[in-house]
Amino acid sequence: MAEAAVEIVAVGNELLLGETVDTNAAWLGRRLAAVGVRVARRATVGDTAADIRDAVTEALERTGAVICTGGLGPTPDDLTKPVVAAIFRRELVLDAALLEALRRRFEARGIRMAPNNRTQAEVPAGATIFPNPRGTAPGLLLEDERGRFAILLPGVPAEMRAIVDGSVIDYLVRRWPARPGPILHRTLRTTGIPESTLAERVADLLPPLEPLTVAFLPSAVGVDIRLTSWGGLPAAEARRRLEAADLALTARLGGHLYGRDAQDLVDVVSERLVAAGLSLSLAESCTGGLIAKRLTDRPGASGFLTAGIVSYSNEAKVALLGVRPETLRDHGAVSVETAREMADGVRARTGARAAIAVTGIAGPDGGSEAKPVGTVWIAVAVDGAMDVRHFRFPGDRAEVRERAAQAALALLLEHLPRAEGS
Amino acid sequence: MAEAAVEIVAVGNELLLGETVDTNAAWLGRRLAAVGVRVARRATVGDTAADIRDAVTEALERTGAVICTGGLGPTPDDLTKPVVAAIFRRELVLDAALLEALRRRFEARGIRMAPNNRTQAEVPAGATIFPNPRGTAPGLLLEDERGRFAILLPGVPAEMRAIVDGSVIDYLVRRWPARPGPILHRTLRTTGIPESTLAERVADLLPPLEPLTVAFLPSAVGVDIRLTSWGGLPAAEARRRLEAADLALTARLGGHLYGRDAQDLVDVVSERLVAAGLSLSLAESCTGGLIAKRLTDRPGASGFLTAGIVSYSNEAKVALLGVRPETLRDHGAVSVETAREMADGVRARTGARAAIAVTGIAGPDGGSEAKPVGTVWIAVAVDGAMDVRHFRFPGDRAEVRERAAQAALALLLEHLPRAEGS
Repeated sequence: MAEAAVEIVAVGNELLLGETVDTNAAWLGRRLAAVGVRVARRATVGDTAADIRDAVTEALERTGAVICTGGLGPTPDDLTKPVVAAIFRRELVLDAALLEALRRRFEARGIRMAPNNRTQAEVPAGATIFPNPRGTAPGLLLEDERGRFAILLPGVPAEMRAIVDGSVIDYLVRRWPARPGPILHRTLRTTGIPESTLAERVADLLPPLEPLTVAFLPSAVGVDIRLTSWGGLPAAEARRRLEAADLALTARLGGHLYGRDAQDLVDVVSERLVAAGLSLSLAESCTGGLIAKRLTDRPGASGFLTAGIVSYSNEAKVALLGVRPETLRDHGAVSVETAREMADGVRARTGARAAIAVTGIAGPDGGSEAKPVGTVWIAVAVDGAMDVRHFRFPGDRAEVRERAAQAALALLLEHLPRAEGS
Repeated sequence: MAEAAVEIVAVGNELLLGETVDTNAAWLGRRLAAVGVRVARRATVGDTAADIRDAVTEALERTGAVICTGGLGPTPDDLTKPVVAAIFRRELVLDAALLEALRRRFEARGIRMAPNNRTQAEVPAGATIFPNPRGTAPGLLLEDERGRFAILLPGVPAEMRAIVDGSVIDYLVRRWPARPGPILHRTLRTTGIPESTLAERVADLLPPLEPLTVAFLPSAVGVDIRLTSWGGLPAAEARRRLEAADLALTARLGGHLYGRDAQDLVDVVSERLVAAGLSLSLAESCTGGLIAKRLTDRPGASGFLTAGIVSYSNEAKVALLGVRPETLRDHGAVSVETAREMADGVRARTGARAAIAVTGIAGPDGGSEAKPVGTVWIAVAVDGAMDVRHFRFPGDRAEVRERAAQAALALLLEHLPRAEGS
């Protein structure tokens, strides 16, 4: 096992049947790549002892290292632990510390522990236990005399991720100290510019970036430009090149660039609001709480967000935001005038210095020739200034809502003072 | 090959690296299950000839039928076609009709055809061509003298889907006319009860259900119980048994059962509100617009949702909802008293007959010994009645918020009149 490579065996009928999209696989692939561990192959099998046994045995013979996800729960269809224990010729033994932790966990939530949870405290003899901070099934590591190993992880994404980040990566990095350069990424995140226009604008910059690769990844909230060093460069050199590429591209992207890597537009907007000491209020119609939800996904929203009003009905626009009935009658709920009055109204009622108002037609119904589905008006007010813009977003209901929320945050960002050094 | 079963081999470095989430696999699994074809196993391999060859060869030996997705494009890293042609001992030959169709396709778009596209018109000798209405790489079918077969499909989801629906399903149905019954599911969706407690409560009901299988699928919003007939029963008999199993389980699940199959809790709540002619308003603190967002994800929310108020700050609770400053001072924002006043306030201000109010500590900060992170008070008011409950949710900020939103909708559901026949 000179090469730092593992195989993944994903267990679950629901994966083969397509009831569940396997998002664990992609997440795990990225995490392992980031530390220079290659995923050599992935097998997906059902909740059948023979299939799990065959897949794990083949992976151990071929690559010598396997990570299993799924099939670790307390119910009878959870077979991964006994099957892999048998491959390594281990008995399952009750771990007193795990049992005690389980009991305490249930106690804390005021729930009686069901007896079948005892199986969650059973581990293959000699296995290393990786704590699960998010659930009841711990991660397990089994190694044989030839140095081959299997790591068993629960299939629930939050639990799997917590164990990988808390224990598995550390174990793998210690196991393979001399692995090749890591796979490193830098992502530049843009919004409000189509993929083809973006690609054209930076086309001449790309060939000199080799061996870095460049991918354009479009989604409803914008286009990400992903730069990658695929492990052919040592870490320090790869980082230097990614930095230089970032600088060159940034100069071409202007206001369309809002962040990097995992930075979401709400992170950037939140930081700027806090830095400027500005309070924000929201008046949402077609986005129906999506902007409020996104801003409050992160802790810290209480530092700037006073309130949001989801004024889904015309009555609510009048009663809660003070939009004038004549405005609704003469111009309609989806109009520049209504957007402006919504923003003014929510600011007046909350005392916030900044406001976003969104009104539009998310579909599938409610469109007309003059105002087709996707028509959205967004108003942004910051202190004395007001900016109202018209958009026509493509896509279905979910996409129109996502695009409208993203455009609203991007428009607000345009009007926020730039923080020092950003 | 008595059994109607295939293996899937997904080809692409991006799948192993996690750059791309493999949505093809789930889609294909559902489509095949619907016509009674079982996916026995899935392998995911990189763009490496040896790995593709091994995976396809193993699948042919094991199951005799394989569907490959990906690696059919015009670039040098697209290896599936030559590798599988070699396994079946076929030469690649230029197909004149395909070449002509390609030329016309490029012409129609006003683009000169790049020479590397010629490889798209090469097919293994004797292969059946499945037209690709959405792109340049057709689907290909190879069969050997023992009746084993491989179907090659492009990895681009829209193209893969078009070929499956246009040709592949027909071929499989004709090939296995006497295949067993279809794979059928029934999912019972529960919330507010842990997986282990649920499993215990229904444990004695499960053995008699055979050959139906039962899986427990936990997530932040509840536990789904999935009943499956794996094709061993004819369709009518399978449906009868699923129905009987559903009835038996339903009787044990009480108010924890909120829906079936693809039904989301918001669907059920929305239907009941509309059927009862009840209007709803929301006062959200820690969920920050998540409940409003979920309700407005679907069209039709305007039929019952008057307004939602995201009262993130204490000031907003007082100014927009009429919560008394003394209540906040004496009991705190996260208290039964505040939850009650929020629900009363939003109802009074919107005139809605029903209201949900949520106040809690989503974390990671803001917890104390008396009110740790995860502490949430939910008030539900319907006409004259008010029900306020205390919860203590596990998990991180996102999970606490999701669980709180789900619990709030479930509590509302308890208080809504049951529609006729549901």
